[in-house]
Amino acid sequence: MRIDSVEFFYASMPEVTLEADGSQDALLVRVVGDDGSVGWGECEASPLTSISAFVTPRSHGVCQPVSASVLGETVNDPKDIFGLSQLVGRNSMDLLQAAHTWSGVEIALWDLLGRKLEEPVWKLLGYKNNFAKVPYASMLMGDTPQSTLERARDARAKGFRAVKFGWGNYGTADVGDDADHVAAAREGLGKDADLLIDAGQIWGDNVALAVERIPALQKAGATWLEEPFFAHAFKAYADLAKVSGKVGLAGGEGAHTEHMAMNLIDFGAVKFIQVDSARIGGIGPSKVVAEHAVRNDVTFVNHTFTSHLALSASMQAFVGLEDHKICEFPLEPKSVAWDLSVEHIAMNSAGEIKAPDAPGLGIQVDEVALRPYLREVEIKIDGQLAYESPSIVAPTRVGH
Amino acid sequence: MRIDSVEFFYASMPEVTLEADGSQDALLVRVVGDDGSVGWGECEASPLTSISAFVTPRSHGVCQPVSASVLGETVNDPKDIFGLSQLVGRNSMDLLQAAHTWSGVEIALWDLLGRKLEEPVWKLLGYKNNFAKVPYASMLMGDTPQSTLERARDARAKGFRAVKFGWGNYGTADVGDDADHVAAAREGLGKDADLLIDAGQIWGDNVALAVERIPALQKAGATWLEEPFFAHAFKAYADLAKVSGKVGLAGGEGAHTEHMAMNLIDFGAVKFIQVDSARIGGIGPSKVVAEHAVRNDVTFVNHTFTSHLALSASMQAFVGLEDHKICEFPLEPKSVAWDLSVEHIAMNSAGEIKAPDAPGLGIQVDEVALRPYLREVEIKIDGQLAYESPSIVAPTRVGH
Repeated sequence: MRIDSVEFFYASMPEVTLEADGSQDALLVRVVGDDGSVGWGECEASPLTSISAFVTPRSHGVCQPVSASVLGETVNDPKDIFGLSQLVGRNSMDLLQAAHTWSGVEIALWDLLGRKLEEPVWKLLGYKNNFAKVPYASMLMGDTPQSTLERARDARAKGFRAVKFGWGNYGTADVGDDADHVAAAREGLGKDADLLIDAGQIWGDNVALAVERIPALQKAGATWLEEPFFAHAFKAYADLAKVSGKVGLAGGEGAHTEHMAMNLIDFGAVKFIQVDSARIGGIGPSKVVAEHAVRNDVTFVNHTFTSHLALSASMQAFVGLEDHKICEFPLEPKSVAWDLSVEHIAMNSAGEIKAPDAPGLGIQVDEVALRPYLREVEIKIDGQLAYESPSIVAPTRVGH
Repeated sequence: MRIDSVEFFYASMPEVTLEADGSQDALLVRVVGDDGSVGWGECEASPLTSISAFVTPRSHGVCQPVSASVLGETVNDPKDIFGLSQLVGRNSMDLLQAAHTWSGVEIALWDLLGRKLEEPVWKLLGYKNNFAKVPYASMLMGDTPQSTLERARDARAKGFRAVKFGWGNYGTADVGDDADHVAAAREGLGKDADLLIDAGQIWGDNVALAVERIPALQKAGATWLEEPFFAHAFKAYADLAKVSGKVGLAGGEGAHTEHMAMNLIDFGAVKFIQVDSARIGGIGPSKVVAEHAVRNDVTFVNHTFTSHLALSASMQAFVGLEDHKICEFPLEPKSVAWDLSVEHIAMNSAGEIKAPDAPGLGIQVDEVALRPYLREVEIKIDGQLAYESPSIVAPTRVGH
């Protein structure tokens, strides 16, 4: 099947605030094959920049727009998608944003191929089983330890078996205050739930600031400390891992190549590798990282903070790994992220979720619900139209 | 001094080809302070994408456009520029292209500050001396060993003491053919010149393909083998380094954070770290990497393939390091890259170049010569103008 068109849909809330909530906008990708087959994907984040990386004029042979490696190419088999990833990597070597743009296109190609072959993507990846995952609720630290405690209790009441707290003032406040929040979170959760703490890169590459927080995390039995440092600060990760004991380090959401994520395992000594398929270059590279995690006794976890389309995409790479249970789940996404899909992945009474068994990603985009959120982009270069947002209405095919 | 404006100028050749020549377009940045001071910088590469990362609507609190961290901020001292780098890193954490956009702005801020304080940037970085460097001529492998030999001889006749060959078919051809080219290059250079070989990431992460080429490189006394692998494939670098003997590995041009470049030293075992200040986040991060190189007995080398403004910017970080002699020099840039500056850095009869001693970067942009190359960009979102190329004519200041 030849790739006939790749279209981008930029959707956002009417107002995008400064909160650390990645569900406020979305860049959806629709690919259409020459037989009329359709697949959808999502890029994370900065829609205008990612659109530009698709349509920009080339700078030279290895700084070409992503479009140059995709349009008119053929996809009949999973290996064709891996081949296109190689091609984009080569032709867009010097275009930094290309990885994020390509991620959404790659995901859409898997969806397209799965629908065409009538198989869920995880089967195309070689998995035999679709194991249930334990989603964690991701929340901001409260303003006071008491409010953190109440949030933890509330998440448990909703059925979550794992809860993540982070951002807010965590890491910048007094060490004692941080410890109080962590203890309060554990108290609110009770003994049986997994407690996860997210530092959001707050300590840069300063290992000492992280080390000070470890005793409180150990005392509370935290499962992981996430992103203590900058995405590339592997040495700091490794130094902290030496003293973090049973508190495993987690990271990887910033990885935009499979090697970058594997480096965090090989050189950063993380115990949990968190991969966002909408950033790392799609589902194929995510699967490569999952295999590397298995080989190194590291737990693979999806990173997802947007829609259930993105959630399904990020789950595909590890649904076949029974022992890799924990799963990020966008708990309270903004309406744009919720409304954009017809189906949603729901938590069952056992506090578990499963990736769809339907063909492709098993999540249909709601083209009607999406309309009010769409933003129109127009780019002109030297007065010539280089890009214009497409119509969300599916293309009608003359002669079919 | 408050940063009043940041303007981008996208210049390109009338036709941009697929050759691996990064001098075919340029994205210049002009910053203007509230006292009318002006500084210039350059981003590398993909002008439209980098402009978009400056003006894009925000996606959330840590996916803001680069503009959000710059406009209206104050720069009076080098530490202010380092502070802004931290701010961009935080506010644009999830915007991949931000590093490339910020690079050009950061360079322009150093130029602005140097001109204001009447000091060359290298003095502001703490260097006492501006040591001469030995530029190498960078050329494509010939179609035949004989033509490679002739190119080498030609570069020597022009006075170059070091020559780099790469791309073309190198690395994909037969191992014997590759060896013939390397031997021919050495023959053309004679015994005294440095021979450098650039593989342009051709072997991905396949160490065996690189290992096969090492004997020929050793026999020819090559100083370095550059970019054998993907930018993030540190493990492959380290494995190859174990068997490359006196042929040092070189890499780093793809680094878009200081940690990424330092990782290539710490985990990739390179002996030459090549930093493009127009990609890594500017001159400040380049200097941080240079200090790390010195601590680890690794040689710092600039990566520059565009204009002499970019060349001056990339030299600043290591002009004070006497033992780090070798320097990339754009030998035959396209006319846009040459014409855009009034001054050029010329090689003397000893085959050496020096960074300017004049304030700032010491390279003035030729606003008149630049005009014919300028491309007009217009971006609209929901019908509202989000970006429009500025006029190259310097802003006139009412009341001054």
